[in-house]
Amino acid sequence: MNSVRICEVGPRDGLQNEKATISAENKIKFIELLAASGVKELEATSFVRPGVIPQLSDAEEVFAAVAHLQSRVNLPVLVPNVKGLQRALDAGVKSVAVFTATSESFTKKNTNATVEESLDRIRAIMQEVDDSVRVRGYISTVVDCPYEGAQKPEKAAEIAKQLLDMGCFEISLGETIGTAVPDDVRRLLEALLQSIPANRLAGHFHDTRGTALANVMAALEMGLRSFDSSAGGMGGCPYAPGAAGNVATEDVVYALHRSGYETGIDLQILCDATAHIEQCVGRPSTSRVYQAMKASASV
Amino acid sequence: MNSVRICEVGPRDGLQNEKATISAENKIKFIELLAASGVKELEATSFVRPGVIPQLSDAEEVFAAVAHLQSRVNLPVLVPNVKGLQRALDAGVKSVAVFTATSESFTKKNTNATVEESLDRIRAIMQEVDDSVRVRGYISTVVDCPYEGAQKPEKAAEIAKQLLDMGCFEISLGETIGTAVPDDVRRLLEALLQSIPANRLAGHFHDTRGTALANVMAALEMGLRSFDSSAGGMGGCPYAPGAAGNVATEDVVYALHRSGYETGIDLQILCDATAHIEQCVGRPSTSRVYQAMKASASV
Repeated sequence: MNSVRICEVGPRDGLQNEKATISAENKIKFIELLAASGVKELEATSFVRPGVIPQLSDAEEVFAAVAHLQSRVNLPVLVPNVKGLQRALDAGVKSVAVFTATSESFTKKNTNATVEESLDRIRAIMQEVDDSVRVRGYISTVVDCPYEGAQKPEKAAEIAKQLLDMGCFEISLGETIGTAVPDDVRRLLEALLQSIPANRLAGHFHDTRGTALANVMAALEMGLRSFDSSAGGMGGCPYAPGAAGNVATEDVVYALHRSGYETGIDLQILCDATAHIEQCVGRPSTSRVYQAMKASASV
Repeated sequence: MNSVRICEVGPRDGLQNEKATISAENKIKFIELLAASGVKELEATSFVRPGVIPQLSDAEEVFAAVAHLQSRVNLPVLVPNVKGLQRALDAGVKSVAVFTATSESFTKKNTNATVEESLDRIRAIMQEVDDSVRVRGYISTVVDCPYEGAQKPEKAAEIAKQLLDMGCFEISLGETIGTAVPDDVRRLLEALLQSIPANRLAGHFHDTRGTALANVMAALEMGLRSFDSSAGGMGGCPYAPGAAGNVATEDVVYALHRSGYETGIDLQILCDATAHIEQCVGRPSTSRVYQAMKASASV
């Protein structure tokens, strides 16, 4: 109960929202440094149709170079459909992530499908994988949708149950646009925990309005022990360019360690990973802990 | 119970930790914009010995220009001793703030006095003010001291009681170096609330490690309804130059409003105040909400 799993999403959710083009070599180094920090779950890249997300069009090249890390780190990759899954499996991927959302408008814009159709795509993916492949499910817009506004917690609960029934080992609840406060998180989790055990749920918070860490702490109090975060807070918000992205891994890890939880992550090595990618993206990390550690080191 | 008081400390705690020299004119404009945003408690400046804090050496000039605002906004100023109080009263100040800390080492470095001697100075100040002057008490280092480390919650409770007995209307609990997490805040407040009503306490959190808003929310749950914050997150951390300072007023106000509390503050006008001072200090605001609002407006 005193252990929390961090899923580091910087190389995927982070970098796909950065404007700068990062070379495969620098992505590989980022992933290697993250693995060295003790991260046990590391979203490496995305096998979407080449061209859809130019920042991640080097999925094969990146994964080939880091695949050997899978002996000690789970390296999930995002797959949108069976075609993406096949490419991932061909690359030697042992862990994939599938995605849908509570909002019809968001799903339409994001994947050109209804929510039901996106669940069908996931069902098709599940039929192609055997027990050797772990599948993680993402649900976006669990609190607010950028197009539709407030989402009913019951919708997230219903989709989460379907994804678990299909065989996902865990559902990551995406607070996509970073509007939520702890009360929203509690309302959401109250609905979900009626039918789903806490150990099958993960929190995925964006810090667009500075509330992400408060939301992590609220979800932690409700029993969640799995959180997604991005080293250095890399990645922005596609709905507010220039605003903060995923909650920073350093900030989550600092708060968890100080609160008596262990994550297995070494903050100093994590900061080395951030220092590397910070230079590549060409803008300063938004992580407060990273900034404070850097400032202290330079004093 | 659904109303929260914000004490805006940007013009004092914020600017005194900024490297840039801000003209009196620009400080006055900052204070005027903050007052226009609906802030009801606004720490205007500090009447310390001229030269001690060069950034605030224009206290008389600034206060003279904004004193008229006192008909609708409390404008506390920091006073270190009777001499500072006299200057403040001569300037027409109706509200002052006095300060001490739980830590002997911090108090020695900060005010060249023991904690007991600093309380004597405050006692002397209290004897010089009549009922027309409100006195707010600050206690620094309530969780951690940069020199001594962890502080006992009982020490903060004991000093807070003394300050209230002397006549302070409220005690602001300063989490000076921004190391605390919600568990620390709960432990601290459990000790304090044994003998002090929640409505005599305020939370003053620094965001050095990204935990400030989570701490505000934790204190809110424990019954506190008064918080200090700085527009745009202005001000840094003297113990980690380059790190974040006071929690940003925008971020606190956003989270409070979304959580069903009213503050009387208009976020848009508050952002105008931040935009003004951001230009003066020459570095971007660290407020996530300010950044998000600015980003949305530019889309």
